[in-house]
Amino acid sequence: MTRLLTPGEMEAELRQIGAVRYHNLHPFHRLLHSGQCTKAQVQAWALNRYAYQSAIPIKDSIVMSRIEEPELRREWRQRIIDHDGDKGRRGGIEKWISLATGVGLEREIVLEKRGILPATNFAVGAYIDFVRSRTLLEAIASSLTELFSPTVISERISGMLAHYDFITKETMAYFTARPPQASRDADFALGYVKTNAHTPEQQVAALAALTFKCDVLWAMLDALYHAYVAPGHVPPGAWRPEGSM
Amino acid sequence: MTRLLTPGEMEAELRQIGAVRYHNLHPFHRLLHSGQCTKAQVQAWALNRYAYQSAIPIKDSIVMSRIEEPELRREWRQRIIDHDGDKGRRGGIEKWISLATGVGLEREIVLEKRGILPATNFAVGAYIDFVRSRTLLEAIASSLTELFSPTVISERISGMLAHYDFITKETMAYFTARPPQASRDADFALGYVKTNAHTPEQQVAALAALTFKCDVLWAMLDALYHAYVAPGHVPPGAWRPEGSM
Repeated sequence: MTRLLTPGEMEAELRQIGAVRYHNLHPFHRLLHSGQCTKAQVQAWALNRYAYQSAIPIKDSIVMSRIEEPELRREWRQRIIDHDGDKGRRGGIEKWISLATGVGLEREIVLEKRGILPATNFAVGAYIDFVRSRTLLEAIASSLTELFSPTVISERISGMLAHYDFITKETMAYFTARPPQASRDADFALGYVKTNAHTPEQQVAALAALTFKCDVLWAMLDALYHAYVAPGHVPPGAWRPEGSM
Repeated sequence: MTRLLTPGEMEAELRQIGAVRYHNLHPFHRLLHSGQCTKAQVQAWALNRYAYQSAIPIKDSIVMSRIEEPELRREWRQRIIDHDGDKGRRGGIEKWISLATGVGLEREIVLEKRGILPATNFAVGAYIDFVRSRTLLEAIASSLTELFSPTVISERISGMLAHYDFITKETMAYFTARPPQASRDADFALGYVKTNAHTPEQQVAALAALTFKCDVLWAMLDALYHAYVAPGHVPPGAWRPEGSM
């Protein structure tokens, strides 16, 4: 890609990355949403995903620390409020803990992140490192997986409620709150990226940032699948041998 | 652990971590060394491991940048010479490239690290971040996996030469050079850790650093196994559900 994309073309490229790399396509999610996971597998998912959830406001604090404009920081601050909560309002992290205990994990195991897969921690660490070391544009572009989350979340809520007798509406409270927040955040970040990627190089970097973030989410599910389910799947974009294995 | 271990006890604890967590125990290595890998699986291993090999002198440069004493930096410098080479002497990285091309990968694919599993990059990144952000003692202790490498390397050389017709002595040149270097480096680092972990807290941190590094190596093979082989195994120390899955 050598020419500057129009904002519309840029948006289409970003959406195309989601269409082929977002983790709604991961085999683990297909099992999870269609009732084919054991309770233990749902627990493993809830526990490992907590490592990610609890790092999000840390990630967003780093992003905020790199923003010069108060208006933009104010916009970003809402993400932290959503996850950390406010007086009288539980945040997303507390709701995730309820989800994890709701599926039968002990609260301390979750809070202490005991037995989280190292690969989960490495993926989360890579995300933190990315927003710290790349440009602000790339840090913001890496949040754009939220563009694709409302669909996977609605599938998840209905699928999990229908298929698992140990899942209640209260357990799923985290997800019921997320879609409007995610849409608001993603719309804002999408506008930012479309407006602030001024050169072809910046556009390429922003697209690569979203690809990277899809890889983070995918790798977490790969690790989960490998450890707690079974088979072997080459993730999108990874080296594939010629012919069959 | 609340009391200070003697140097001998400390060494025994370090060796015990290797005995249960070093990646010679990983199922992928069992397949690799016993001739049960396909050529494509050996290629996937060589390609992904290149991401690790090529990061080692970067890791060691970070360690050196954190050392105050010229004598200690001089000692550590040898590691970089071993991997980067010297006039007239190929370094370990060049030998690894020969290994990768020797098993049939194109040189540019290797040099550009094309299609490396994201999980491999995340594990390598976690190691880099670890030596940058933890204490020098922890950074040095994390190198102690070399204590256990001579055994796995000798198994690997004989096993791979015996079982794969596409593996030659020249292909394995990286490994033939490593055991004396690894032993020298590991002996030095072991002495350093035994001498410089002065408090129980420092000893615990040094032991955790070696555990962390074993997790890095293990996670790389997990990702490889998941992507290019098959089954599902919980890595040592990770959360296990009660009962069976």
